[in-house]
Amino acid sequence: MRIAVDAMGGDYGPRVIVQGAARAAADFGVEVFLVGQRDKIEAELKKLPANRDLISALKIVHAPEAIGMGEGLFTFYRKKRSSLQVCALLVKENQADALVSMGNTAAVVYISHKILGPLYGVDKPALALLVPTLQGSTLLIDVGASVNCRPHHLVQFALMGKIFMESVMGVFNPRVALMSIGEEEVKGNDITKEAFERLEKLPINFIGNVEGRDIYSGKAEVIVSDGFTGNVALKVSEGVVEMLLSLAKREVTKNFLAKIGLFLMKKHLKRIYRQIDYSEYGGAHLLGVKGTCVVGHGRSNAQAVRNAVRMAIEMAKNKVQEKIQAELLKMEGVIYGLKA
Amino acid sequence: MRIAVDAMGGDYGPRVIVQGAARAAADFGVEVFLVGQRDKIEAELKKLPANRDLISALKIVHAPEAIGMGEGLFTFYRKKRSSLQVCALLVKENQADALVSMGNTAAVVYISHKILGPLYGVDKPALALLVPTLQGSTLLIDVGASVNCRPHHLVQFALMGKIFMESVMGVFNPRVALMSIGEEEVKGNDITKEAFERLEKLPINFIGNVEGRDIYSGKAEVIVSDGFTGNVALKVSEGVVEMLLSLAKREVTKNFLAKIGLFLMKKHLKRIYRQIDYSEYGGAHLLGVKGTCVVGHGRSNAQAVRNAVRMAIEMAKNKVQEKIQAELLKMEGVIYGLKA
Repeated sequence: MRIAVDAMGGDYGPRVIVQGAARAAADFGVEVFLVGQRDKIEAELKKLPANRDLISALKIVHAPEAIGMGEGLFTFYRKKRSSLQVCALLVKENQADALVSMGNTAAVVYISHKILGPLYGVDKPALALLVPTLQGSTLLIDVGASVNCRPHHLVQFALMGKIFMESVMGVFNPRVALMSIGEEEVKGNDITKEAFERLEKLPINFIGNVEGRDIYSGKAEVIVSDGFTGNVALKVSEGVVEMLLSLAKREVTKNFLAKIGLFLMKKHLKRIYRQIDYSEYGGAHLLGVKGTCVVGHGRSNAQAVRNAVRMAIEMAKNKVQEKIQAELLKMEGVIYGLKA
Repeated sequence: MRIAVDAMGGDYGPRVIVQGAARAAADFGVEVFLVGQRDKIEAELKKLPANRDLISALKIVHAPEAIGMGEGLFTFYRKKRSSLQVCALLVKENQADALVSMGNTAAVVYISHKILGPLYGVDKPALALLVPTLQGSTLLIDVGASVNCRPHHLVQFALMGKIFMESVMGVFNPRVALMSIGEEEVKGNDITKEAFERLEKLPINFIGNVEGRDIYSGKAEVIVSDGFTGNVALKVSEGVVEMLLSLAKREVTKNFLAKIGLFLMKKHLKRIYRQIDYSEYGGAHLLGVKGTCVVGHGRSNAQAVRNAVRMAIEMAKNKVQEKIQAELLKMEGVIYGLKA
């Protein structure tokens, strides 16, 4: 298996990417293409412990340009030789089995979709993210790839999510729910109400609507949402955790006993933080395109990069996109709301 | 000032409502109509300390029916004599200056809007909620009254939110932001992008897009969203806090030292919880209808009920709805995207 890793993406640059890719190559026995500016990647490779096997597993593919974290989608046209674009081309030309990037999510989604192309039967791609819950983990789909959705897009997301959970996570017949504003069928907006009717007709374990709070309750293994709402939901969660940490710091530094209290709880609080830190899972999966693509959080450390590569391996090995295409073509009647 | 309080709404029934209403009457010197089943309200009134002033300030208005927390909107037609409907009629007929309910939010919004009617110039009502942030508080508008929005609705929400913050909270020229999935103007869905262009043309302090995480950062005093996304955002926040509390309990009970740590921090954690508990503010405000209406959280305790009455007094006293109508009629050209 050959994984193309965008060495220039992410908040910390090639350092953590090269470290993480090296760990993945060592742990999973895959070949990794480090795609990006040759001199920068070489400098990082030199810092790794000398290991003949590792060196043969890591190959540099030079790409002179890099896309910044804040750059817009026109980089697709302006930077034809960006590390990201070269990664996508390697996958398209079947020289790599998957691509992994910690870069600008919007650019990764746009460029991968543009170069790899959509699967037959898929109208819009979706970014699927595993989030930790009280029971295990839930796949939130879409978290930002497709922000203008019609009912048939949501139905496609549901099927894609189900196939992902079955193939990659080994969750058989996962409970699939629709993100809405109340559990009753009549709750929701015009799009979710129409999607609800079609989801009921699919041969999946559709449990109905869930509310925002249920992302973390573990009530469903797949929660379907348009990319706008899904993205807001995800970032709100980050915001709440950030606020709580700030408030806790502010409160605790006021008082000596509270400081001791915090010290005694530190190990446990760290464990909680690890449980809710979704970068542990490695990243989000772009479903619905002709090729395997994993997008990690910009803040990813080397361990998260390694985990992202592992997720890409699992997805490619289990032929998730191929299964999605086969399943969606079978379900076209229900997806588009056509009468039997 | 006369406030109609729905004594039957809320998770805890008349007990906390009557207690909270009595506190409000005592603290703010207003007359309160306790609307609901006479026998139940009388039973709760008897439990209050005998106080001649208080007794003359609290009046029972009998309404034989009550709307359950889980009931649908058809209760409007089925239960014509519900406590909620009688509250709205009291406001409509100018016998009360405002209504306060801790009941079923969907029913309060639907029935108030139906009975009081929309303001001229307002196409859809919005539920505006003050949420605590690191800097103070931010008004999130809409959190669930209008779930199918076009750009002009979002523009109206922005103006309504601004007027509320200026009139009730005394925040002059508040920073108004649009909830989206990235800060750049090009980020968002088709609706928010069109709304963005119109918001830029309004004579308000529009600071552009914010992301979900910014609800709690205090970057803006007003954050505009369609009711579907706003509701999901709010409930996600509740879900995150619930998950963190469960995880913390699970972790801490494992270890004796951690238990001591928690004990030492308890007072501070409680203070943090109070800071993030938005029921402290009393409730959400229904903006855009002909009359003042405050909807509290079903879980409200007596103090939250008292605070909801205070918010209703402030809103009625400052003639928020009247100001909204005047301002929105002036801005029609920009709201609907008409050329000058």
